This record gives sequence, C-alpha cells and structure tokens, in this order.
Amino acid sequence: MPDTMQAAVMHGIRDVRLEARPVPEPAPHEVLVRIGSVGVCASDVHYFTHGRIGGFVVRAPLILGHEAAGVVVAVGREVTRFTVGQRVTMEPGWTCGRCWYCKTGRYNLCPDVVFMATPPIDGAFAEYVAWPESFTYALPDELSLAEGALMEPLSVGVWATQRGQVAAGQSVAVIGAGPIGLVVLQMAKIRGATTLVAVDIEPFRLELARKLGATHCLSARDCDPVACIRELTGELQGFPPAHAGVDAAFETAGTLATTRTALGAVRPGGQAVLVGLPPDPLVELDIVSAASREISIHGEFRYANTYPTAIALTAARRVDVAALVTHRFDLAEAAAALQFADEHKHEAMKVVVDVAAE
Amino acid sequence: MPDTMQAAVMHGIRDVRLEARPVPEPAPHEVLVRIGSVGVCASDVHYFTHGRIGGFVVRAPLILGHEAAGVVVAVGREVTRFTVGQRVTMEPGWTCGRCWYCKTGRYNLCPDVVFMATPPIDGAFAEYVAWPESFTYALPDELSLAEGALMEPLSVGVWATQRGQVAAGQSVAVIGAGPIGLVVLQMAKIRGATTLVAVDIEPFRLELARKLGATHCLSARDCDPVACIRELTGELQGFPPAHAGVDAAFETAGTLATTRTALGAVRPGGQAVLVGLPPDPLVELDIVSAASREISIHGEFRYANTYPTAIALTAARRVDVAALVTHRFDLAEAAAALQFADEHKHEAMKVVVDVAAE
Amino acid sequence: MPDTMQAAVMHGIRDVRLEARPVPEPAPHEVLVRIGSVGVCASDVHYFTHGRIGGFVVRAPLILGHEAAGVVVAVGREVTRFTVGQRVTMEPGWTCGRCWYCKTGRYNLCPDVVFMATPPIDGAFAEYVAWPESFTYALPDELSLAEGALMEPLSVGVWATQRGQVAAGQSVAVIGAGPIGLVVLQMAKIRGATTLVAVDIEPFRLELARKLGATHCLSARDCDPVACIRELTGELQGFPPAHAGVDAAFETAGTLATTRTALGAVRPGGQAVLVGLPPDPLVELDIVSAASREISIHGEFRYANTYPTAIALTAARRVDVAALVTHRFDLAEAAAALQFADEHKHEAMKVVVDVAAE
Amino acid sequence: MPDTMQAAVMHGIRDVRLEARPVPEPAPHEVLVRIGSVGVCASDVHYFTHGRIGGFVVRAPLILGHEAAGVVVAVGREVTRFTVGQRVTMEPGWTCGRCWYCKTGRYNLCPDVVFMATPPIDGAFAEYVAWPESFTYALPDELSLAEGALMEPLSVGVWATQRGQVAAGQSVAVIGAGPIGLVVLQMAKIRGATTLVAVDIEPFRLELARKLGATHCLSARDCDPVACIRELTGELQGFPPAHAGVDAAFETAGTLATTRTALGAVRPGGQAVLVGLPPDPLVELDIVSAASREISIHGEFRYANTYPTAIALTAARRVDVAALVTHRFDLAEAAAALQFADEHKHEAMKVVVDVAAE
Repeated sequence: MPDTMQAAVMHGIRDVRLEARPVPEPAPHEVLVRIGSVGVCASDVHYFTHGRIGGFVVRAPLILGHEAAGVVVAVGREVTRFTVGQRVTMEPGWTCGRCWYCKTGRYNLCPDVVFMATPPIDGAFAEYVAWPESFTYALPDELSLAEGALMEPLSVGVWATQRGQVAAGQSVAVIGAGPIGLVVLQMAKIRGATTLVAVDIEPFRLELARKLGATHCLSARDCDPVACIRELTGELQGFPPAHAGVDAAFETAGTLATTRTALGAVRPGGQAVLVGLPPDPLVELDIVSAASREISIHGEFRYANTYPTAIALTAARRVDVAALVTHRFDLAEAAAALQFADEHKHEAMKVVVDVAAE
Repeated sequence: MPDTMQAAVMHGIRDVRLEARPVPEPAPHEVLVRIGSVGVCASDVHYFTHGRIGGFVVRAPLILGHEAAGVVVAVGREVTRFTVGQRVTMEPGWTCGRCWYCKTGRYNLCPDVVFMATPPIDGAFAEYVAWPESFTYALPDELSLAEGALMEPLSVGVWATQRGQVAAGQSVAVIGAGPIGLVVLQMAKIRGATTLVAVDIEPFRLELARKLGATHCLSARDCDPVACIRELTGELQGFPPAHAGVDAAFETAGTLATTRTALGAVRPGGQAVLVGLPPDPLVELDIVSAASREISIHGEFRYANTYPTAIALTAARRVDVAALVTHRFDLAEAAAALQFADEHKHEAMKVVVDVAAE
Repeated sequence: MPDTMQAAVMHGIRDVRLEARPVPEPAPHEVLVRIGSVGVCASDVHYFTHGRIGGFVVRAPLILGHEAAGVVVAVGREVTRFTVGQRVTMEPGWTCGRCWYCKTGRYNLCPDVVFMATPPIDGAFAEYVAWPESFTYALPDELSLAEGALMEPLSVGVWATQRGQVAAGQSVAVIGAGPIGLVVLQMAKIRGATTLVAVDIEPFRLELARKLGATHCLSARDCDPVACIRELTGELQGFPPAHAGVDAAFETAGTLATTRTALGAVRPGGQAVLVGLPPDPLVELDIVSAASREISIHGEFRYANTYPTAIALTAARRVDVAALVTHRFDLAEAAAALQFADEHKHEAMKVVVDVAAE
Repeated sequence: MPDTMQAAVMHGIRDVRLEARPVPEPAPHEVLVRIGSVGVCASDVHYFTHGRIGGFVVRAPLILGHEAAGVVVAVGREVTRFTVGQRVTMEPGWTCGRCWYCKTGRYNLCPDVVFMATPPIDGAFAEYVAWPESFTYALPDELSLAEGALMEPLSVGVWATQRGQVAAGQSVAVIGAGPIGLVVLQMAKIRGATTLVAVDIEPFRLELARKLGATHCLSARDCDPVACIRELTGELQGFPPAHAGVDAAFETAGTLATTRTALGAVRPGGQAVLVGLPPDPLVELDIVSAASREISIHGEFRYANTYPTAIALTAARRVDVAALVTHRFDLAEAAAALQFADEHKHEAMKVVVDVAAE
C-alpha cells in the first residue's frame, strides 16, 4: 500500500485541486477501498458552486463525492465479511446502530449519521477510502464499478417508490426527468406500475425517459401537466378529471412549480413524495385541496436498507443505471467534471469520475 | 305516521325558520328515522353564517344538520337489518358501493357520495329523515341518542388517528382543543398513546382536554408550542430538541399558524394529519424542513368504516363524547343554537339540538 | 337476441351434455354477455369428476365454468358504464356491497357472495351470461377474449403476491408450477422479485416456468427443495442455510408435502401463502419451527379488487397469460375439455373452451 | 465493588445452588447492574425441570433468569447514556446491530443474538450482571424494580398484539390466561379492543383476567370455546356463527388443543398469533378451514423495540404488571422459587426472585 494518494480537494467555491493526501488507515471494522468510479451528484455540484447546502457549510479543505465503488485492498482486524480483492460499493452514510432510529430500521434518521462529502467528512474523489464493513456491499460480477457507484442514486429511487407505496398496475407521475427522476421511474416500473408519466422541459431527458419505460412524456412547456395527467388517468380509471390523477407522484426537480405539479397530479387518496428540495424552504401549497382529496405527502431523506435491493435489481438487468451516464472524466479532471455538470444541464444526465480502471 | 313534520329550514344567511315539511317516504333500502338529537357542527355554523363552504353553496331552502340519531319508525320493503322501534345513528354520507373507491374500502372518496346537509341534500334538523339501511347503525342501550348523534364527530377522530398511525406508547400532539381536537385526543389515548399534548388558546378547552386525558396542556398564548413540544419529547426520547417531536400531530383548528405548528411538532419520520381546513387554500409551509425530517403529511376527508368502532368504544365507556356537550336547544330553537355556537366560542364546546325526548 | 342458447350442462359425475337453455334476461344492473372464451379451472374438473368440492355439492343440472370473457349484447336499464358491442371479462363472484366485509374492501369474504359455477349458480360454459355491471370489466383492444377469460386465474396471482407482500429485490419460491403457480411466479417478478424459484415434478411445467421468469427450477424428484432453497438463498443473503430461505413462498399444488415445503422454504420473518388446498383438511405442520422462525402463514380465498390490475398488466404485456394455454376446445366439446384436463395433467397446462369466435 | 458475588447456579436437573462467582467486568459499551428483582419465566422452569428446551441444552453450570431490573453500579468507558445510581431494566437479548435483520429493525431474528440464560450465556439470578448499554433502559421513578423486571414478559404482549394488528374497537381472544396471556390481554385493551375474551381452565386465572379487563371469561372445561366465541362475536357483528369470530386470537398456552382453539376462534380475514409453543413440533391443523377463511397465522419469536413502549405504558399506569406477581422469594431461595413455580401452577401466576431490596 502506498502512503499517499491523489485526491480532488475543494478549497473554496469552484476551487477543486488534485493533491497528495495520506492513504487512510482502516479502523478495526473498516475496509480500505481503492476507488474505481464515483458519480457526480447534484449536491456535489451545489457545494462546488455555492460552498454550502442549507445549514451544511463547506469548511475547506473537503473532498467531495459520495457515490462510489471500488476494490477492497485492506481490511481492519475485526472485518469478517470482506477479503482483499472483492469489488464493492459503499453506502455513504453510516450510523450509530444503537439509537431508536437505528434499532427500528429507519437508520437514515439517526442523529449521529456520518455521511461522505458532507462537511466535515471527506468523500470519495480520491484513490482510497476507508469505510465500515457494515455499510459496504459486495458487487456481483454482473456490475461494473461505474454501475456500482450508481447504487447510491438508485437507492433514492428504491426508497422513494417504497415511501410512495407504488404497486402493480398503478399509475405514477415523475416530475423531473433527471438522474433521480429516471431511477424513480424505473423503480416504479419494476414495482409493476403500468402508467408511467414523465414530466420535464428538456426534450433529451424526456426521450431518455421514454427509452427507460415512460408510457407518457409531457413537456411542461407545451401543456399544463396537472390537467394532462388528470385527463389521461381519468380516462383509464373511469372518473372525471377533477376526481382523477395518478396513484403516486414524485417531485424530483426541487422547484416550487414542480412541487405544486406533484401535489396536483395525485388522485384522491394517493401519495405524493417530495424527493427534490426547493431552494426556498417556504412553499405556498394548496393544502385545502390536498386535504380534501385526502392525499398523503411524504418527505424523503436519503434511504435505508436499499443497497441489497438496488444491487439485486441491477444484477438481474431489471434496471439500467448505465443508461444514465452521459459523460466521464478522470480523477485529475474532477474540477472539470463538476464544472461541466453545472454548465451543461441541457445535455449532461449523469457525470462519472473514473478514478481507476477496473 | 303523520304526513307533515317540523323542520328548521335555512332560507338565507342567518335565516333559519321552523316550517312544516312532508315526512319523507323511505325508499326500498331505506329506514325512516324519528330524529332524537342532532349535533351542531362547525360546518353547519359556517353555512348559517356564510351561505357556503368553498365550492358548496347553499341553494335555499336547505335543512342543515348531519350528526343525528333517533328511532326507526318505518322501514322500506327491502330492509332486512332494522325493525321499527330500534334506536339508531346515521352515517351522513352514503355512497355508490360500486366504484373503485367503494370496492376498495375507501368509500369516503366515492365521487357520487350523497352527504346530509351538503347542498342540495337536506339534513337532520327535522323530525324525520329517511336513510339507507347500510349507512344506519343500531345503538346499544348504553348510548343515549345525544351520544349516538356524536358518533359522527367521533368518527373523525377514529379516522384521523388511523391516518396518523397512532400506536401504543407513542406521543401525540393535538393542535386545537375543540370538539374535533378532543375526540382525536381521546382516540389517541384509546390507541395507547402515553404522551398526549393539547395545544389551544382557550383555558376552558385546555381544562377539558386535561380531564379527557391530556398529559400536557400548552397555551399557544404563553409559549411557542413547537419549541415546548420538541423540548418535552426530546427529554423523553433522549434526543436533542432539534431531532425530537411527537410521533403524530393533528391539526384540528384550521388556521395557518396551527398548520405550521402541527408540521413543526412532528419528530423525524413522524406523521402530521390535517383534520381542519385553513380558510385560504394556499398555505406557506416549510417543505424543506418537512422533507428533510422525512415526515408524512396526511389529508383527511371525512372517514370510512368508523361507525362500528365509534359505537363499540362509546358503549364500553372508553371514550366520553357526552363530556363535550355544553349546551342544548330544542328543534324550535335551531336558529338560536346556530347563532349561539357562532357567537360563544369561548364557552361552547358542542351544542346539541334535541328534536324529541328519548 | 335469440330466445334460446346452447349450454354445456352437468347432470352428474362425468356427465356434461350440450343442451338448449333460455337466454337469461339481464336485471336492471346487469349486462348480457355473449361468451367468447372460458378457461377450464381445476375446480371445474373436480366438480366434473367428483360432483363436489368439500361442502359444495353439485345439484344437477349445473353449468360449470367461471373464467369467462365475451361481448356485451344487451344492458339492463340502470347500466351506465357499458354499451352493446364492448368486449368484457366478468369477475365470477359478486357480493352484497353493504356488509362490513364489502364496505372495508375485502368483499371476497362477503357471506352473501354469488359465485359462478358454484352450486347452485350456473356458470359460463354457455352462449350467454347475464352479470352485474359492477363486477364486469372492459377489455382493452390489446387483449384477446381468451386472455380476458384468464384474468380470473391471474387475479389469484395478483392477490397471492399481495398477501405475500412481495417486494422489489426479494426472493420467492412457488411450490407447484401449474397455471396458478405460473401466474404467481409472473406476478412476483412483476413486483420486482429477483430470485424466483419454481418447484414441481413435471419437467414440462418447470420448462415453462423458466420461460416465464423463474431463475431457479427445482424438481422435487431430484432434490430436497427446502434444503436447496435454503442453500441458494443463504448464499445470496450471507446467512447459514438454517437461517436462510425465501422472503415469500407460495403453495399452489394442494398437497401435504408441498404445504410443508412452502413453510420450510421461508426465511425467518418471511411469508408463506397457502393458495392451494390439500385434499384432507387436517395437515400436520411443524408449528414450532414456523413460530420460532416467526413466519406468517396466510390463507387465500379468491381475491378482491384485482381485475383492474390484472387487465392493466396484461395490456402492458408485463404478464403472459396466453403462454399458459396449451389446448382449446369448442363449446360442443366442453365435456371432452373437462375429460382432457383431468386425464392429461402431464401435458395440459391451461385448457380453454372457445364458445364463439372473436 | 466486591470481587465476588452470590449467584444461583444450575448444575443439573432440579439442581440449583447458591455459589460465589466473580463479579463481571463491564466491557467498554456495557453497564454493570446490581440486580434488584428477577421474574421466573416458564422457560427457566423448563430448563430447571428438563435441562433443555428443544435444541437448547443446558451445559452446566448455568445461571438462569432473564427478566431483570436493578441499579447501575459501574459503566464501561464508552458508555454515554447511563451513570452510576440509575435504575434500569435489561432487554435480555442483544444483537449484532449490523446484519440485515438488525438493520431493518427486526433484530429479534438476528442469527448472532446473545440471550441471557440461554445456554451458554449466564442469566440474572445473581447479584451483578454486565450488559450492553444499548439494550439497557432507564426506569422512571414510577416503576418498582419488580415491575422493571416484568418489562420482559410485557414486551411479549406488546409484540404479540403488534403482530396481531389489534386495533381500536376490535374483538380479541386470548387462549391461556397465564402471565403471558394476561399481558397480551392488557395490551389488546390498551390498543382499544373492546371485546376481550379470555379462555383458560383455571378459575383463579380467569378471575384475574376479568380484573385486568376481560369482558368474557370462558372455561374450556365448561364450553366449547370456539363455538362460544363464534356465537358471541356473531351477535356483535351481525353474521352467523359460521362466518364470525374474533379479529385476533392469541395462543399463549402451548398445547395442541389451544392452538386449534386459537385458529378456530378467528373470523374470516382475521389474525392468529402463536405465542406459546406446543411440546411436539408437529401439530395437525385444519389448514383448509384456515385458508378458506383467509386467516393469517403469525409466529412470534421474542420481540423487538418493545421496551420503550412497555415502560411508557407501565409508568402511565395503563398496564398492571404488578397484579401478576403472586409469590416472591429471595436469591438464596432461587431453587425453591423454580420448584414452587413448577409445582403450584394452580395458584402461582408470576413468581419473582428479589435479589436486593430497592
């Protein structure tokens, strides 16, 4: 093992530099992973361009990147499930395992979570990461390391569709067809939804949505998506548009308009899931309508117990995360990757940083 | 059976007159009920004072009142479960029984619901009402007719606590300690909640809340209820206030401030139920906080399959609806009852109109 | 409309004759359907060969057949959702719509159910059937009438996998790969299960199971299926075989051995669903093992609210019921069809009686 | 701290001796508890009289006892939530916190559970026990240490009624009115059940059941409990006895007869929970009836996440575990306590061993 490694370190807004850092030492329960690929998440881009996300402020220097997969190169002395040479992906948040949230299976709400690339914890734009074995997962041979890295965004889709209780034969609307919208869409299809509406304003995103299973693609530039969704679902369900809508709607774009669309698109008694976060905390919503149609609105904060599902589905080729990857960069180009993801939203879906060849 | 009956008929805003009306003829599946007692609901008062609730506009003349119990005096020719002389209460909304909502058990969302005292359907401030037997329920001897009438508001509490998934040992906050707040509070206790917080601004309401089981009574005049609730639950749960809150919060007052309180009072991963409706549809809510704490917000529209539960609990003296009744009027005084309920909110909890002695 | 029609009428054990019968008159809420295709169910065969199923004894003459689709040729005067010429399938059990089971959405348990071809109600091996519109469903153009008829067995699979709570990424074992086993298998895949084990003793059934999505096909002649299932799932889950098993197992063959296999195949905390019925009511089961592994065992009795789901999935080509049809007969050959289904279990999967060409 | 302590050590069948043992040293995450009271469980008695329970064989010497409460007298160096002097109760099974069962909140099924007084782990009939802080719970002042010890059997009732999905207004039957039956009964009442049937053969048990909330007490010596339960629930529900039964039945006596009674007592669509374990693993059950009435049968293995609920309910005086205690012994009399519990089933409900005065 070398003593030092290369890492892309953020020193300030739009200032990410390749630097030498000591290779971390795995603690007794940790594995040391030689990183293969890392996905660029919208939150990485937001830290890069704004230096903060809400209350989380980058205290430089910080290594970004939390969607990562690689190969185990060393194991702590109490590690029992991994051996050197295994290909793995890491769940970026690890938790105490002992509080009420952890013990009841909802560990994503553990107050003591340690999350990669969330200040002050370093992330994975680096050659090596040490990580607890209980939040590390073996990758079957069927998955590339780039796919392994994308188990993280796929987890968001697994959790969102579970929160939204998507069931076989149902109708679903995904508002926003970016990387998160498209994993939600695929997961809704996997759970058996048969009417899959994608809403966006970018034609290239809607085109990809259609390839990945959307049965209806609506451009919010060309129509009122709520009216369209109620019309088409009303016909399917035999109800007038005012009493129609999808069984579950997912907001993944993080704007006021899309949040309203999500709530308006849901049928009486249905589910709205808020996956994206609007930039302003206060959002004016039609609560009277939501309540009198008796819908449920679910927040989403990361995910819990989703990795085994995400990996099994990808290995079985039931979901296609590779299709989301539009651009790839080397570790030395991490700053360029972040810059590109920020500036080319019209053509970039998922940007991946490849740290080492498989 | 007489041909005509007395009824309190609304002719316009604050204009309710006692008039003779033909006694209704029960249809084949209907029972004819001689009304004993009728509760005055906030929606009756709102029709009385404003002539409308949202899109529902009173087209005079209309008989108000939808919380009713009485005695069967005649039965339609296909009625099989009721005989003359039985004491009954009526679920005020009856539904088609054949659409998807009805067939899946969520008949409160049936688009063809017929609801008492919702224009243009006449209600129960009258000596007789004909009603479908399948939405009529026998009253055990243990229940007075006034209690029977209150199975309707109690149903709101049954449904709300079911929507809010209240479980044994949990903590609950009820925002607003009016008649609905107090049935929600009692139902939360019945389901085993051990921390029961009532929030209001009227001391007499909070006093009654304490008698009915509240473990903590907070006046929103004296404290910030969200801060207080997080403080007290945090101590119980062993989490800092920022990560604490009740397992379920119920908004029953229908204002912007109480809606925000309800959302803020919920712990990460908990449930907020919107039972009341704010006067303005658009409400500015902190969606980022709600989402990142991963709470679920549930609308509530009436109830389904709650009457058997409400009756069983009242007969078993597990809930006390009689304690809510503060004022009683005769049918001839129906207008006065509505006026009183409107003008004496500081002392009136539940007002009941007695149409006939038991 | 003709006055009389042809029907295959059962007069005694193995005695089914083609006879003229009056065409039924649709009641006000009924549609009259010209039958296109009817599936032969194991229960039809059992009535044919034994004259009874448990307490249900054929009182001849009786028309068998309850998996049916056809074309509306007349409508009762209160029918609102169907018009002459529409292609439809009929849910064979219709219920009161007013009892507690119906009102709570579990109408399959309504004590007053009227079920086709269950003595004394006539079934669908006939040219015409009159049926309540609320248990009749429009068929999209994508479905043939033979497929429409098979929405009934598919419904059993929809309900079974719902009872078994099958979720994305899970492992499932289907014990028995006959028509019911194969719809359960397909529905488990539709809901996202990734490990799909089929167990049978007939090679041609296992072969079809593999075509329809099984990832592992086990012949109970060649291995101990419980040991095999625990072995393979244990490897996937990282647990020793004694602590492993599928998330859900489905018994569809109705024997003592397969019931035991189903219970033994489930992991701790998993679900076993009993879809088939063993010939003897009393079955010796290892209750201590089931309890100490904390599994849940679910009975299944028909289904509720499954037709819209079954139709949507078939129209979307997510399920293949046509693949189950191995043999077809005309109405005039109904007796032969029943005989064949009884005698050729080694090659017959689903036998269909075609009453009229599309 | 003394170096040695007194402990009641089992050396063979009916051979338990008071001996000196070293006081355990708390590991970094453990607290050292000076034991106050310990409940005698049927499993302790079974080890005492048979030397084994199924596959768990006592390898002497072993200290029995797993229902324990006491006072913290020392803390390991990483303990953060407890300080010396706190009164606590211990959940007797602690688990790895890292496997799939632990991470999904169902830690009672963790294959690596360490359980007090289950060979080879020593239990609590001793002056001191060292235990992980994450499975130790602070006792509010309202609870005595004897009550604290009984949080363990109460946990069984919390879990059983959760497994059985008991809800407000429901009917419940508890088969067997021993200590476990009576905590299940109380928990069912706490969750809002209004019809509470207790079945046993001992009059003194049924008497206590009535005091603790049973609305109907049936002696299986005097009646056929299934027939009685179907009769009484049928009247309440308006269904014929053949279609009636309780919403949930709980088997707590561990015999073939009571297991059959539990299954037979459940209404169509209801829940049966197997809390007791019959002595022979193979039990002949009427599976056809269970399946065609579509009931669900749930195994139960210990409990998970129940202690906070049990403690909150006891502190709120919603449950009365003290009423179960009929006999108390000192630690020096531990052998006598076990002997007495074995031989006086007609008068002993819960026997408690007091190790130290409060």
